Amino acid sequence: MTTPLRLGIAGLGTVGTGTVKIVQRMANRLTARAGRPIAISAVSARTRDKNRGVSLSAYAWEDDPVALATRDDVDVFVELMGGSDGPALAATRAALKAGKHVVTANKAMLAIHGQELAELAEAQGVTIRFEAAVAGGIPVIKALGESLAANQVTRVLGVMNGTCNYILTRMESAGLTYDEVFAEADALGYLEADPTLDVGGIDAGHKLALLAALAFGTQVDFKGIEIEGIEQVSIEDIEQAADMGFRIKLLGVAQMTGRGLEQRMSPCLVPATSPLGQLEGATNMVVLEGDAVRRIVLSGPGAGEGPTASAVMGDVMDLARGLRLPVFGQPATTLLPAASAVAAGAAPFYLRMRLQDKPGALAKIAAVLGDEGISIDRMRQREHTEPSATVLIVTHKATRAAIDAAIGGMRGTGVLVDEPVAIRIEDV
Amino acid sequence: MTTPLRLGIAGLGTVGTGTVKIVQRMANRLTARAGRPIAISAVSARTRDKNRGVSLSAYAWEDDPVALATRDDVDVFVELMGGSDGPALAATRAALKAGKHVVTANKAMLAIHGQELAELAEAQGVTIRFEAAVAGGIPVIKALGESLAANQVTRVLGVMNGTCNYILTRMESAGLTYDEVFAEADALGYLEADPTLDVGGIDAGHKLALLAALAFGTQVDFKGIEIEGIEQVSIEDIEQAADMGFRIKLLGVAQMTGRGLEQRMSPCLVPATSPLGQLEGATNMVVLEGDAVRRIVLSGPGAGEGPTASAVMGDVMDLARGLRLPVFGQPATTLLPAASAVAAGAAPFYLRMRLQDKPGALAKIAAVLGDEGISIDRMRQREHTEPSATVLIVTHKATRAAIDAAIGGMRGTGVLVDEPVAIRIEDV
Repeated sequence: MTTPLRLGIAGLGTVGTGTVKIVQRMANRLTARAGRPIAISAVSARTRDKNRGVSLSAYAWEDDPVALATRDDVDVFVELMGGSDGPALAATRAALKAGKHVVTANKAMLAIHGQELAELAEAQGVTIRFEAAVAGGIPVIKALGESLAANQVTRVLGVMNGTCNYILTRMESAGLTYDEVFAEADALGYLEADPTLDVGGIDAGHKLALLAALAFGTQVDFKGIEIEGIEQVSIEDIEQAADMGFRIKLLGVAQMTGRGLEQRMSPCLVPATSPLGQLEGATNMVVLEGDAVRRIVLSGPGAGEGPTASAVMGDVMDLARGLRLPVFGQPATTLLPAASAVAAGAAPFYLRMRLQDKPGALAKIAAVLGDEGISIDRMRQREHTEPSATVLIVTHKATRAAIDAAIGGMRGTGVLVDEPVAIRIEDV
Repeated sequence: MTTPLRLGIAGLGTVGTGTVKIVQRMANRLTARAGRPIAISAVSARTRDKNRGVSLSAYAWEDDPVALATRDDVDVFVELMGGSDGPALAATRAALKAGKHVVTANKAMLAIHGQELAELAEAQGVTIRFEAAVAGGIPVIKALGESLAANQVTRVLGVMNGTCNYILTRMESAGLTYDEVFAEADALGYLEADPTLDVGGIDAGHKLALLAALAFGTQVDFKGIEIEGIEQVSIEDIEQAADMGFRIKLLGVAQMTGRGLEQRMSPCLVPATSPLGQLEGATNMVVLEGDAVRRIVLSGPGAGEGPTASAVMGDVMDLARGLRLPVFGQPATTLLPAASAVAAGAAPFYLRMRLQDKPGALAKIAAVLGDEGISIDRMRQREHTEPSATVLIVTHKATRAAIDAAIGGMRGTGVLVDEPVAIRIEDV
């Protein structure tokens, strides 16, 4: 089979340019490994005249990505524009309708329109590959959809946003507040144009929604995710948690429960000695748990030109070699609706509160916890000089609802100096 | 496509039985995900009458694995007998000649006969899949051969033998000697019938040979691996290394150098804070480095019924879904001979020696190192009461040949109490 596989690449930012570079640099190797050449027919981007450090003169240029996606000389539409709607969505739909396979890094588009696009692709006899959309160069989509295909997946969890993990680990190592590290990251150009997508947990939530669909055979259900960003994480909690053997991570967790699919993306305490607890900087880590495989851990760069382009090209190579899988591992029409917005199950919680320094204050707090059926695993009150005392409590397993009720009850005791903090402790 | 994919499974030990269990337990899911049923036509094992905790009555029985492998109602021969030659090899050859795909967990057979078998498979238009042969449930073969297909792989390294890592971490945590932990593991039934395959580094070497072929497009070259087992690792070195921030691991490393393919499997010091340094117990970990992806780390259970059967069934699912890749990622006839037995490049070394406690002893040792062009990064001599002093040295980069020459020179100084220990420090 020596017919080349012909790509149309839309979006020539970091990842698009990186993809073009690999096709050019590795031509012989790609041919040897795919059994056929990988060629670029045409490219498209917002701006044509821009030095991208790579020659595009051998490729046709299209101003309109829809025109690119439907060209006769394109077999695979490589969508690297981003954005959940707009041109990316229009061009992806057009490509599928024209019978082209799609390779994309666009987690937002698939998290929101994944079901529609998968059904469209499969009706047209083509597929959508999206390894680059989750955790950059880490082959988590392939591991979940292919390697673990014979497992009943029990839980998927991980740190899937490098910016958030960078901010949290930098806060801890430098003893800085969230606002200070945010400003620092901004000055260094580490933040996206709209940083709330990252720090608000939205971007990581998009990724989690895709993993959950693949893991549990459910329709992508981004709206069903309980999302909380890292904006409220304080340096004090990071330090107190560290002192008790934990680190705070923006953790995504998806698991199938008797009540339906539970999906959440929120700051959690994890044991400092666990692989997730040891994760530094912008690295991503995903843990996959299945009934047969037990637990595998994958980590690596979650973003960047090379790693993301590597994932894009892995998908391209799969298509060149003839792999044709349903988008989410089984036909899209057989995916079950996820029973949305299932509240998270019980877990231990970390509680931090400041109490007035007067007799009986702690007893009142303990009584309120007892009233809500929450038992205390560990408690710590430090020596202090101010007229208030910081108390740290690690509870036994409790639901978030019980914790919230207890915090309500604490307010009624009149011994709180300020609002208590409650963070879930995840068993990783 | 509703034609079932029909398996013939030879070998009903832990992994074979685990594979049968998955096929039975997950029938509906496998059909949904593969788009066709996965069926078992026939099985074979040494002993027919044995309670394996799973019903085999629905399958034909063959005493002879060759007969099983060539049955008309078998599409895929699943070889789980083990052994580099004998029945496993005979049945695998027979299966390929009969135009059957092969799925195997047999690292020894492929490390020794991989080139011949791959050429035979490809001449017959079938393939051999072997995810289960390396690192159990961790999808390292898929990651290297598919996800990183567009990378120039620069280095592959890892801990690939759970027994050795268990012994080394147990020595450290319990402060026991190698012989003590070996006896303990033997009593607990953790060791293979021939434990030298594990502790001698042979089993891990077989796995490294397969990874190297896939990573570098070279013919499998098990004989080209520099292998050293863990039998000589002393508790004293484990403790001294720990004290200097290192842990000792049986580490496999394959990298392409200007001189050819360098492959080694030997005890190495790695930083205690690195992912490899933190690896505990029987877990395996493989690090893949490529020009685009930079570095990904995969870890998980390297053995056991569930994880290994999960990998076997991942391969079966790939075949059911129509994936047809060359055995080692590109046609076997295009794999280049590995320039064998390339000596390892320079690295820092850890040296431990006991010196007579007399003036000038250390100066003589330092002079010998200087004569061989080896410079000292760190040195440590502890307070001591005996008439000899233990000296620890971390060198700057040096070749093993220079280190060996220096040790020869040290012997001539007359200040050594016993034979120095030299262990490579790997940059992980």
